[in-house]
Amino acid sequence: MDFQDIIIKKREKQTLTAEEIAYFVQGVTDGSIPDYQISALLMAILLNGMQTQETARLTMEMAHSGSLFDLQQVAGYKVDKHSTGGVADTTTLILAPLVASVGVPVVKMSGRGLGFSGGTIDKLESIPNFRVDISEEQAIAFAQKSNLVLMGQTDNLTPADKKLYALRDVTGTVDSLPLIAASIMSKKIAAGADGIVLDVKCGNGAFMKTKEDAEALAKIMVEMGTHVGRDVTAIISGMEQPLGMYIGNSLEVMEAIEVLKGNVQGDLLEISLLLGAHMLLLAKRVQTEAEGKALLSEQIQNGKGLEKFRELLVQQGGNPDIIEQPALLPRSACTKVITAQQSGYITAMHTAKIGRASQETGAGRAYKTQPLDFGAGIIMKKRLGDTVAQGEPLAVIYSSTDEKCNSAAQILETAFTISAEPAPLPPLVYEIITAQKG
Amino acid sequence: MDFQDIIIKKREKQTLTAEEIAYFVQGVTDGSIPDYQISALLMAILLNGMQTQETARLTMEMAHSGSLFDLQQVAGYKVDKHSTGGVADTTTLILAPLVASVGVPVVKMSGRGLGFSGGTIDKLESIPNFRVDISEEQAIAFAQKSNLVLMGQTDNLTPADKKLYALRDVTGTVDSLPLIAASIMSKKIAAGADGIVLDVKCGNGAFMKTKEDAEALAKIMVEMGTHVGRDVTAIISGMEQPLGMYIGNSLEVMEAIEVLKGNVQGDLLEISLLLGAHMLLLAKRVQTEAEGKALLSEQIQNGKGLEKFRELLVQQGGNPDIIEQPALLPRSACTKVITAQQSGYITAMHTAKIGRASQETGAGRAYKTQPLDFGAGIIMKKRLGDTVAQGEPLAVIYSSTDEKCNSAAQILETAFTISAEPAPLPPLVYEIITAQKG
Repeated sequence: MDFQDIIIKKREKQTLTAEEIAYFVQGVTDGSIPDYQISALLMAILLNGMQTQETARLTMEMAHSGSLFDLQQVAGYKVDKHSTGGVADTTTLILAPLVASVGVPVVKMSGRGLGFSGGTIDKLESIPNFRVDISEEQAIAFAQKSNLVLMGQTDNLTPADKKLYALRDVTGTVDSLPLIAASIMSKKIAAGADGIVLDVKCGNGAFMKTKEDAEALAKIMVEMGTHVGRDVTAIISGMEQPLGMYIGNSLEVMEAIEVLKGNVQGDLLEISLLLGAHMLLLAKRVQTEAEGKALLSEQIQNGKGLEKFRELLVQQGGNPDIIEQPALLPRSACTKVITAQQSGYITAMHTAKIGRASQETGAGRAYKTQPLDFGAGIIMKKRLGDTVAQGEPLAVIYSSTDEKCNSAAQILETAFTISAEPAPLPPLVYEIITAQKG
Repeated sequence: MDFQDIIIKKREKQTLTAEEIAYFVQGVTDGSIPDYQISALLMAILLNGMQTQETARLTMEMAHSGSLFDLQQVAGYKVDKHSTGGVADTTTLILAPLVASVGVPVVKMSGRGLGFSGGTIDKLESIPNFRVDISEEQAIAFAQKSNLVLMGQTDNLTPADKKLYALRDVTGTVDSLPLIAASIMSKKIAAGADGIVLDVKCGNGAFMKTKEDAEALAKIMVEMGTHVGRDVTAIISGMEQPLGMYIGNSLEVMEAIEVLKGNVQGDLLEISLLLGAHMLLLAKRVQTEAEGKALLSEQIQNGKGLEKFRELLVQQGGNPDIIEQPALLPRSACTKVITAQQSGYITAMHTAKIGRASQETGAGRAYKTQPLDFGAGIIMKKRLGDTVAQGEPLAVIYSSTDEKCNSAAQILETAFTISAEPAPLPPLVYEIITAQKG
């Protein structure tokens, strides 16, 4: 097989065969296809698309490019969760302990943040001494004991995805629906859970800007998962403003703890309960979404969710005292308050800009190897629909230097739209797509 | 400037600025942009196109990526010629001596063949001891004396094109109109001639299959040339059958000599005279195309064209005795005759297949570094419109082994269409586009 023929075929909008996709992924994995040929094919895929069947094959070949994480030794129905990424999207830290606390095992591999979007692994690493590099053996032992493991991706999982993602990241080929779907689902399939809940973010702070794009991605991912016998639910949820009020790494850990303590209401709690309820539904631990949300709310009220989070901290080396003493978490020394230029209603937020401002504080990365300032970030003071008086704080910026505070402020100041008249609030949840073996 | 932003801009069908194109070509030339990013941009250009202004800028940046060949020391108006490539397209070997013999200097850098299409440098190298690696200093000295140099491209000419072409060649990004135009014209501009005649081949044995594509390429190249003050004429000519009757390297040299001797009429002679006449027109050596053709025909009749060819051979180390003794040129030992399966009119030839069959004999290359069998190839016995009787020879294959003869025959046998009724002959010349400073 000549790889250039495969490139030309996709360039001409033709459908690649199972053999051609297998050849491609094999060549990516073993390094026999040079990067410059791979990136040409990636651009052709981005511009000419892939049929569902091609995406399914690509997903499976990528999932099998390394070893699959075998979770059979962990009893019960294992659930996993993935968010396509947003700002103050802290649900994993909340729902994973809640779900595990009602006896449904959560073994979740997470990633790092890039650009405006944060990553669970970075947030966990902001907890002093918390370990995320957990071996598969260790993870199984942890899950058998606590029902909960939050870990980085192991080295032998989906090497083809690692290689392709690194290339996409520098060749302008990230924003491809089939490539995004295959990347996410290959990792989730290889990670071994029986049921997967996908939070497909949609809006100006997400990779998918429109409901149509989010829906297309959600549908294809659900299809990929069921294609290989996994139960999958995709929830399309809004990202027209930061989900929580705290943006950053240690800042998001703090907010998650407050949610688990029952001190925080609102969108972050709502989405955490909704995603968690659907994880319980897939596991048949509850019969309805409402029952699931009620059960998880109870775990907040009775403190069992927080206890599970404490167990996670101890298990993976983190200091559990952060729960009572948030001051043990890093917090950057310099601050800057952003205030409203005028009075009125907050009618829009440019959420990606808010994420970019957070990145500018040191909480996020412009490039993959950039070190993070774990204590940096932004605390939001207002949400869409809130009224604000001129001079009233909109947000507080935290960073290690006044210079970074100022450059974050420059971005952040342009992120709010304040109007005399209120505007309708965007939906928090757009659609839920589910497919189970039954 | 971040190169990925440039990739994404083109991916989104936006127009690149002069600065972005300069940054791109500079980065290609100095190696600072990695191949995998270049190939992603090339695919985006192929699929999303380029505006004329972008192509012009790309052409100029590529032309200036190395040193320009300064022909000022050669007196007079210097002319150059380029063919976009075809089968039995031997015109350079005929028209260059003819044009030089009437006092118009021809200093031409040529390339090698690839795939179904031959290259002048390969043909010249089939002449024992003929040297094509001529330095610029040597070329100027030759041109001052003989008005004629046929040479390979020098190392310091358009390094960006060399790099881009090598990448395009392995990433499925050859067939892009703006990239083809920029590649050809950057080389022609850097090669320093005042006037350039382009032979844009069109048909089933050319890169441009339709008149529309050929016209688009011709127009853009004429525009590029005039943009930088060169006179350019583009002739769109047919390639629905091999132009000459001899296909291969030494075989095409033999036919060229026969044309220069006045022994061959037909399409190859016609196109050679037409292209040559337009070179003379650009140089203002003649006033009309007819006058140019008549003058060049005269140089065949009086033997001065052949004398100029002999002078070229001596000048560049080739054995001039090949003119009287063609047997001094290599000719492969094994032969196979292809005969007609039925009687009738030859109504179509799959010319690219004939070129592929020639490649199979060893006369052409499947990949760039493949060594050639200079004596291999095909001698055609029929042209479109000819009648043929069942069992009558259509072509004779020459190769070094019977095995290669047979595999070439397998391809060649399927290249002819023989019908009971004659079909209209395709045009030899479609259109002539010219633009001069005036």
